[in-house]
Amino acid sequence: MHGNVIALDVGGSQVKAGIVDGGLRDVHTLSRPTNRLAGVVPLDQLTGLITELSDMATDRGLDVRAVGVAVPGIVDERRGHVRLAANLGWHDHPIGSLLADRVALPLRIGHDVRSGGLAEFTVGAAKGVADTLFVAIGTGIAAAVRCGGSDVSAGGFAGELGHLVIDPAGAPCPCGARGCLETIASAQAIVRDYLRRTGNRVTAADVATLVDAGDPVAAEVWRVAVAALATALAAAVSLLAPEVVVVGGGLAECGDVLLRPLRVEVARRLSFQRRPAIVTARFGAQAGRIGAALLAWRAAGG
Amino acid sequence: MHGNVIALDVGGSQVKAGIVDGGLRDVHTLSRPTNRLAGVVPLDQLTGLITELSDMATDRGLDVRAVGVAVPGIVDERRGHVRLAANLGWHDHPIGSLLADRVALPLRIGHDVRSGGLAEFTVGAAKGVADTLFVAIGTGIAAAVRCGGSDVSAGGFAGELGHLVIDPAGAPCPCGARGCLETIASAQAIVRDYLRRTGNRVTAADVATLVDAGDPVAAEVWRVAVAALATALAAAVSLLAPEVVVVGGGLAECGDVLLRPLRVEVARRLSFQRRPAIVTARFGAQAGRIGAALLAWRAAGG
Repeated sequence: MHGNVIALDVGGSQVKAGIVDGGLRDVHTLSRPTNRLAGVVPLDQLTGLITELSDMATDRGLDVRAVGVAVPGIVDERRGHVRLAANLGWHDHPIGSLLADRVALPLRIGHDVRSGGLAEFTVGAAKGVADTLFVAIGTGIAAAVRCGGSDVSAGGFAGELGHLVIDPAGAPCPCGARGCLETIASAQAIVRDYLRRTGNRVTAADVATLVDAGDPVAAEVWRVAVAALATALAAAVSLLAPEVVVVGGGLAECGDVLLRPLRVEVARRLSFQRRPAIVTARFGAQAGRIGAALLAWRAAGG
Repeated sequence: MHGNVIALDVGGSQVKAGIVDGGLRDVHTLSRPTNRLAGVVPLDQLTGLITELSDMATDRGLDVRAVGVAVPGIVDERRGHVRLAANLGWHDHPIGSLLADRVALPLRIGHDVRSGGLAEFTVGAAKGVADTLFVAIGTGIAAAVRCGGSDVSAGGFAGELGHLVIDPAGAPCPCGARGCLETIASAQAIVRDYLRRTGNRVTAADVATLVDAGDPVAAEVWRVAVAALATALAAAVSLLAPEVVVVGGGLAECGDVLLRPLRVEVARRLSFQRRPAIVTARFGAQAGRIGAALLAWRAAGG
């Protein structure tokens, strides 16, 4: 496909944006801290970035065909409507039509994790797999679900793997429930658990390094997180029987320290079920933006 | 649609069969104990039943257009292949092609629970709902999953709700795992738990009646089963966000004794997730056979 698209992945702390060509190659990328006005992320920053990238493309003699924007929260991508994005301060926000009023290009809205899944399912680690799951493990945990070659959204509510209750008597989750997977196995939960046991505040990546180095406390923190992840994944496997589970998000950067025990623990929880391959994401932290580019190409009719 | 189809639902204890018209009305139904030869259900009985119903239709001047057969186990309905049906003694059984060699009519194979789901999703309690779940609770527990209007099979492996591990330290399950939902909340598990606590062997329906009558032991047995069911359903809701959950199978015959506490317990386990309506199946024990008739009509091109 000739021409280019503009892709934005709007996160709670930064907006990743770029010009992406028809081969999904990055022509130009940039990243900005997410602006906030009274707790709410204003559209101005997004339209500003789109204009900036669009002008840059024009300066370089490039044709921009469409825009794709991935956002977090409960996102009904079909309607371009954000039901709730707590960390952007958005509630019942018709971002699709609001942006369409301001941007003179075909435009499509996506959900950040489902966009990441789209990238992994279309051109990434689960390319061409009909039944597959993309699990993003970072500050939170969520999944993108593909069944029989179709992406599952369910009005924006699907894929809340992080809110499977693993320990009904566990810690309170900001969502209102107790013992959600996120309270045990997110990067944040790993940091918190290590701090509680040692008094030391380190990153989740540091805990992974300590695990590799044989630190017994780090190993126990890791074991608890991996066990909870495996329990949630085994439930998803029993229900949906993915052939491939793609693990992405910040924690996936830890590589085999995470994936090796995770494969063992998932297998231990299965009997006759189809065993999925559990693999690392191809696009890492860029999956959402690459997915937004794919959405833009769809908007362009490409 | 003019004409009729023949529908079979092959169970471990009985085969339900019938002639069904284009409005899915029963023209004739019959039920026979399932035959076994050295532990294996022979095809002869199925072809015999198809011939019997076909001859009966001819005698009445009725036109038979196609045949649908629903079977339990791990069934790849696309290939007409049974990977495993433990209670029929079938393993890697290409039932679709074997029956096609013996029956001179268009023929389609289905999975019993997914066929039941097809009936409920197409003309039953979740008619026209895009995101929905059919849960059959009887001797075992399994689900049919519909996402975005498409039925999920995943090569026959999807929908094993009964093998979500609810209590990792729980009783061994015949599947090889421990504490599967089936070991706690199936009709069989309820019977076993009541027997263990009282020394009395009664049916699951009897336990439901005792719950209604205020029996405290029955109430405790029921509470444990409903809590486990609710935990499994809440996991499915977090992942798939069905708008409607249809409860079928033998235990659903208990009606509100089951559904009322189940609604409360599922709601307790959810926070921001979309809350499904939890309703009783329309077709009860006939869902699999009605679904088989729908499959037959598809085979007929209707």
